[in-house]
Amino acid sequence: MSRGLDHVLQRFAAAQQQATQSILRHPRIELSDQLEQLAQRATRYTESDVYGRGPLIEELEQRVAELLGKPAALFFPSGTMAQPLALRIHSDQRQQREVLLHPTSHLLLHEQNGLQELWGLIPTTIGEASQPIRKADLPQSTAASSLVLELPAREIGGQLPSWQDLLAQVQWARAQGVAVHFDGARLWQCPPYYQQSLAAIAELADSVYVSLYKDLGGIAGAILAGSADFIATARIWQRRAGGNLYSYAPFILAAQQGLDDNLQAVEQAYHYTQQLVPKLASIEGLSITPNPPQASMFHVFFPLTQRELIEAVTDYAETTGIVMLSLPRQVTESGCTCEVSVGRAAMQQTPEYWHYHWQQAFGPLLARAKKTKGE
Amino acid sequence: MSRGLDHVLQRFAAAQQQATQSILRHPRIELSDQLEQLAQRATRYTESDVYGRGPLIEELEQRVAELLGKPAALFFPSGTMAQPLALRIHSDQRQQREVLLHPTSHLLLHEQNGLQELWGLIPTTIGEASQPIRKADLPQSTAASSLVLELPAREIGGQLPSWQDLLAQVQWARAQGVAVHFDGARLWQCPPYYQQSLAAIAELADSVYVSLYKDLGGIAGAILAGSADFIATARIWQRRAGGNLYSYAPFILAAQQGLDDNLQAVEQAYHYTQQLVPKLASIEGLSITPNPPQASMFHVFFPLTQRELIEAVTDYAETTGIVMLSLPRQVTESGCTCEVSVGRAAMQQTPEYWHYHWQQAFGPLLARAKKTKGE
Repeated sequence: MSRGLDHVLQRFAAAQQQATQSILRHPRIELSDQLEQLAQRATRYTESDVYGRGPLIEELEQRVAELLGKPAALFFPSGTMAQPLALRIHSDQRQQREVLLHPTSHLLLHEQNGLQELWGLIPTTIGEASQPIRKADLPQSTAASSLVLELPAREIGGQLPSWQDLLAQVQWARAQGVAVHFDGARLWQCPPYYQQSLAAIAELADSVYVSLYKDLGGIAGAILAGSADFIATARIWQRRAGGNLYSYAPFILAAQQGLDDNLQAVEQAYHYTQQLVPKLASIEGLSITPNPPQASMFHVFFPLTQRELIEAVTDYAETTGIVMLSLPRQVTESGCTCEVSVGRAAMQQTPEYWHYHWQQAFGPLLARAKKTKGE
Repeated sequence: MSRGLDHVLQRFAAAQQQATQSILRHPRIELSDQLEQLAQRATRYTESDVYGRGPLIEELEQRVAELLGKPAALFFPSGTMAQPLALRIHSDQRQQREVLLHPTSHLLLHEQNGLQELWGLIPTTIGEASQPIRKADLPQSTAASSLVLELPAREIGGQLPSWQDLLAQVQWARAQGVAVHFDGARLWQCPPYYQQSLAAIAELADSVYVSLYKDLGGIAGAILAGSADFIATARIWQRRAGGNLYSYAPFILAAQQGLDDNLQAVEQAYHYTQQLVPKLASIEGLSITPNPPQASMFHVFFPLTQRELIEAVTDYAETTGIVMLSLPRQVTESGCTCEVSVGRAAMQQTPEYWHYHWQQAFGPLLARAKKTKGE
């Protein structure tokens, strides 16, 4: 990164800090205010959780287990611990180390290859990087122990396989004796597209991970859900991995708060995103994936350099107090891809409002970029 | 566990909850009050930590690194994650999976054998279960990659090797090319006995783990400290293990609070414990290990059944509001062993006060037990 870009990033961070409005996720709460809120909520409990036991933590696990229609659930500090651990259990049961994953899986891109280095599993990628795994991508036969399906697939704009295709994949897995694991970091977003309940979706999987902070606005943490036996084994592995803590109290309280405040909004955000995307996509020069959206998130491609884009976002935030985008998730020679996660923040305004401001912030720049390219 | 004992345990838990005074650790703070306190402290920071970065978390790591005189430090959710991870790094560097540990090491007794099952290391125990590892216990030569020394050794009442013996062990390890790792869950207690600073003690080790909640009263969490290179590698493994979280903010704030409130008290507690132990040991029928104490903790053996002892503690707590002991850590046919960790709670009263109340609570029972045995 050039010194110039560093400076832009500093300006971006400062502008984001000062901003009064954002298109991203939920309205920001200061750490101190959040802790005040949790202190208030904590008065409902006479004692903290201790090593994974006690009403504080068990109520949350029970609540998420019920949402997912699973017999049992276990709180984890992170999906990065919960997911390879789940796959290890499936692997041990089947005496087979191979795991099938999408090329953009979090386990392959963002976990320092812990799946292999720490958990001793062997990843095999299936499907194309630009679209979710389809039934047609699955081999005739396999010796793999599990199939990981990320619903929705974050790195490709929150795409989902069709419900029919998903059912066919699960049927394939059952026939092969392969465990189905859902990477449901953003599973909360799936019900409206599938017109199915969370439980009906989760029923397809042997194990499901959901995140408690991304869409929900908690502090950190995750839930792994499955059968009672599966979770009993997960508890042992969690101890081995150092994830069974003396107390998780603030994380638990924040997750409960997040479910109260944001779970419903995630569903509403899907419908809002259906309105928002066509509006934003009408701005000449950018393109949105997927369009129409399939979840309450999407990706936007700008044929601009990283510096041009971040400067535009920063300038606009400095002038208006409105954050239009987060930093690009992907930068290539042809341009930048940004992720937009829609939540209560965007929904405070109309889709027209965001269209207007995106046009103001990026329209001239995109027009200039098009002209330059045309010359 | 018999149904009868279950009932006693419930009564014990309730009495503990209601109690107004305790000999154990630091005065209890309600979760809600603790979160209020952390909310207050959070106003010092303009932003939360994000994936292990930012002033909030780096200031704590820096503070503990300085206390331990180490170039670098990394926050972990638990010692159960930090320690095998540290040993794995030493092991990879030396291409040797064997690790030397005391028979009562936390890694052997309380971690579901994660050291072996998850981290792929092979434990070899050295020394006797009833005393710390001594230089004389170490083999002439070894192919092990690391030597784990728990200072003080919790399961044996907080015993320590002499400073001279410790130096000899470290010298042996250096000569053998074996890494020295300190399990310093309670390392904060060591300076007065050794008449050495924390940094002078930690200097003997290649890697040091310290806990942020046990003696310090944080919520959960640990620090691993070592060379800059070692910690850079630990950061990669921490990601693999799922310990690099979106935010640890409440844990970090609580650890800072704990250092402010309790670090000095741990040193004072050593001197207090020196006064307390002879007083308590004068009660006929119980015995204290070690005597004299070497840290601000000790073990007490009661020749009573678990039920007799817990009922006595519960009865006394119900009558007086004073908690005299926590549940036994070890129960054998000949009796029960309890751990006493001395902190600001005990120090609110004189050693004579605790002697009086222990005599009241246990004296008659111990006398009866002696008489029964004598018959």
